[in-house]
Amino acid sequence: MSENAETDIIEHHVEEEMEKKRTRSYGSSFMESVTPSERGGHSSTQSSHRLLAYSDALISIIATVMILPVAHTKVQDNEELKESLQVLLTTKIAVYLMTFLIVTVAWASHIRLFQVIERIDDCLALMNLACMMLITFLPYTFSLMATFPENILGIVLFCACDMVLGLIQALIVVYGFSRPFLLNDQIQVSENQVFYKHHILKVIMRVPIMCFFASIFSLIFFQLSYVILAIVIFLPYISQSLKWCRGKAIGQVEETPDSMLFYTYQLNEPLSKERVEAFSDGVFAIVATLLILDICEDNVPDPATVKEQYSGSLVAALQVYGPEYLAYFGSFTTVGLLWFVHHSLFLHVIKATRFMGLLNTFSLAFVGGLPLAYQLTHEFPRNSRNELEAIQISCVIIFFAGFFQLAIWVAALFCERETLHPYVRYGGREHTFMLAKLSLYPCVALGAFFSTCFLSKFSASIFHLMEITVPFAFLLLRLLVRGGLALLRLMFCPDRPEPRSVLEEEEEEEARVPFNAVIT
Amino acid sequence: MSENAETDIIEHHVEEEMEKKRTRSYGSSFMESVTPSERGGHSSTQSSHRLLAYSDALISIIATVMILPVAHTKVQDNEELKESLQVLLTTKIAVYLMTFLIVTVAWASHIRLFQVIERIDDCLALMNLACMMLITFLPYTFSLMATFPENILGIVLFCACDMVLGLIQALIVVYGFSRPFLLNDQIQVSENQVFYKHHILKVIMRVPIMCFFASIFSLIFFQLSYVILAIVIFLPYISQSLKWCRGKAIGQVEETPDSMLFYTYQLNEPLSKERVEAFSDGVFAIVATLLILDICEDNVPDPATVKEQYSGSLVAALQVYGPEYLAYFGSFTTVGLLWFVHHSLFLHVIKATRFMGLLNTFSLAFVGGLPLAYQLTHEFPRNSRNELEAIQISCVIIFFAGFFQLAIWVAALFCERETLHPYVRYGGREHTFMLAKLSLYPCVALGAFFSTCFLSKFSASIFHLMEITVPFAFLLLRLLVRGGLALLRLMFCPDRPEPRSVLEEEEEEEARVPFNAVIT
Repeated sequence: MSENAETDIIEHHVEEEMEKKRTRSYGSSFMESVTPSERGGHSSTQSSHRLLAYSDALISIIATVMILPVAHTKVQDNEELKESLQVLLTTKIAVYLMTFLIVTVAWASHIRLFQVIERIDDCLALMNLACMMLITFLPYTFSLMATFPENILGIVLFCACDMVLGLIQALIVVYGFSRPFLLNDQIQVSENQVFYKHHILKVIMRVPIMCFFASIFSLIFFQLSYVILAIVIFLPYISQSLKWCRGKAIGQVEETPDSMLFYTYQLNEPLSKERVEAFSDGVFAIVATLLILDICEDNVPDPATVKEQYSGSLVAALQVYGPEYLAYFGSFTTVGLLWFVHHSLFLHVIKATRFMGLLNTFSLAFVGGLPLAYQLTHEFPRNSRNELEAIQISCVIIFFAGFFQLAIWVAALFCERETLHPYVRYGGREHTFMLAKLSLYPCVALGAFFSTCFLSKFSASIFHLMEITVPFAFLLLRLLVRGGLALLRLMFCPDRPEPRSVLEEEEEEEARVPFNAVIT
Repeated sequence: MSENAETDIIEHHVEEEMEKKRTRSYGSSFMESVTPSERGGHSSTQSSHRLLAYSDALISIIATVMILPVAHTKVQDNEELKESLQVLLTTKIAVYLMTFLIVTVAWASHIRLFQVIERIDDCLALMNLACMMLITFLPYTFSLMATFPENILGIVLFCACDMVLGLIQALIVVYGFSRPFLLNDQIQVSENQVFYKHHILKVIMRVPIMCFFASIFSLIFFQLSYVILAIVIFLPYISQSLKWCRGKAIGQVEETPDSMLFYTYQLNEPLSKERVEAFSDGVFAIVATLLILDICEDNVPDPATVKEQYSGSLVAALQVYGPEYLAYFGSFTTVGLLWFVHHSLFLHVIKATRFMGLLNTFSLAFVGGLPLAYQLTHEFPRNSRNELEAIQISCVIIFFAGFFQLAIWVAALFCERETLHPYVRYGGREHTFMLAKLSLYPCVALGAFFSTCFLSKFSASIFHLMEITVPFAFLLLRLLVRGGLALLRLMFCPDRPEPRSVLEEEEEEEARVPFNAVIT
């Protein structure tokens, strides 16, 4: 299996690259065909790649920032974890999750905007920086809202940010359409640019207009403005889910015209895969380093204290911080391995749909909570009830982070012809291996959770064992999967001749897929 | 000028893209020509692009992390800034700068390693994650060293990290050479792979071996181990500068054989431009959001306090934080605009040399200090001596951050044929504009610095004026440069006929450059 698979996978990647090249060269050859006069008086038209990478980095930092107030909440040792957790869960964690959602909504609209405008110039780069500044301010207004829900200041500030953001985005669209060489090639060659422009402006201005009403209602009856804001954020998803359900129920599938491709809220609309990756990388990187940031800042002992309390022994002084180091290594490894799974998954994804993006957001939101959970596991006395609960919470968080990654894959399998590389599709050669990779963390976390329920005395040992074995399990996963398959074969059909293995069967099944038809 | 320039620039970018494609298709066609048996039994060979992007994100966070202890040092209002600054400057800022340097050295070695190994598989990805974990731990060991210079624990930990890092890197090289399809194409087709392998292993193992000696010496005579570590870090730069000076003095230019290209410490050795950009983006993104992280965490007032002290008025309570918001917007704008300048510069850079990378590191190290400086400017009473000094420090930091960006450009101009796009080379069409962009911040910062010296009463106003005008100056820079050139022409040669403008002269000069010879 291995050699052929290898060749084909590489060939596929090559073909994918060629595809990219083709699109690109289409773009550039089009650029050449446009006469200079059409391009107006602007030199220094630039590819938007790096601008978008920088924006993704900024947005991913901002999305995860509200985990810091959660992480830095001191949990008192004497009071029960449950009580303090109630305070935590009701406000700070809610703020974190909502911020994450709001920021990712802003990010999705940023993606759509720069799917229309594909080239930038200095002016657009500066306008984009202004957008970024407003987006980075959103979490703060949101935490004001959460802390003072009855005060209108938070909501007014939030609406003001959103309105200015909408206006700048509208300005970017108007600017882009006044210099058509900046636009997406498909719109550039289209004859009804004016229609596009109005359609896109209409979609963009919907948000600031609703925010305007929300801020006006906040003066009269502030509860209503929260409702309006919730509608702003969730409407696209709700309306699309409803439409989808109706479509499934009645059986009437509404086809969107191809012309609207770039500014709809379709659930299976493609998101830029590169940007989903860049955003996820940013979140994983921030989360992986959250604990070392704290360690570097707080856990360098004071020389005077070391002299007085530990009679000059630095090692003894640092032993107090032992649990912090352990938490750091544990959370870095877990986040790193979840990144690794994510990386493997998106390596085989050809196109990310909006729904997959939403699942990815959920997964990342749980990943953000990981360092906090790991830190909690070491803050309580050994074998206390608090420790057990902290460990169980960690297991639950790991489970959901991994589970939503698995859900991305399942969602991708539902329209596998468009979204997945043939090798990981149902029955493909890498299918089993990918499934094993994706289900390793959820299974292990679930197993650890239930075993801590029964063996509550050994909960810490079970958790540490999990931390240590999982990296090795990933290293040896290919062997384990083969071993597991062989074992299954041996158990269920022991008299089947050995060489006719499951893998070969898969290969045959694979051969039945009309390979070329799918690729092109 | 504009229309022709436009066409040519776009054409150039197109040509650049084609060049990339050619290299890539060389790579992929080579991959196809390798027989499957040569590739061994491994499927899922992957492009290393995303792994490197994630590593860059992690390393850029870690490089800037030591600014947090500096930023969170509380400066007392009653004591003079100078005194507290002495404490700050001598330890924390030194730790920050040294950490930045050490982490960038580790990053540079990571670049070199993955210039040799161009494709990855699961095993390499996991080994790389282990490397990352060790690199993220370096700042902490370093701050232990700085806080307890006479205790050997810090240096032993640092050496241990470096040794394990070196061993894992050696393992990666051995693993890569055992699966040649993972290697750089040039090495892959070369006949003396074994020679390469030994050469690279020799270079990599130099660091852990020296660290080993350093840790042994630390037990006997710990000052010596600091010397050895300093040599480890600076040796490549020092030896290369000496070689370069000798070469210039004697006139004998030593040509490195092309075969050694990938593992030398040549100052004009190409660094991967993409990775320099990704790393810089990461640093800019972290630094731009440093203040909002603090604001989100600390500046949400307590509901009880608001009720008691401000009789329920949230606006009044938030007014206390006014200076923090101002500092945030000021630093975000400045960092954003410095990113913008960096982006414009690297848009015109074809190849980044190691020396340009070093200058870039210096520039980024100053950028990291910006939020701190901006925060300081608002922490003191109006018109106090402390405020004046904080503002002057901010100006100095902005000046150096911009100055080193300018230095990158000057360094690039020294070997402009290899490093720069023809349009920004000396005498090129965009030359003046690029120079104006790069010198705007240093000039403004210098101007602000000297004007605060003379008009110390208005220092805060001058500083705020600078913050507000600079973004507009960037927006209108093209107009300003043209106006300035016209003014110069009018002043120095008023009788010259108007249409024969400086820009046209530049164009003529440009025409003299053998265009095609350079591109190909």
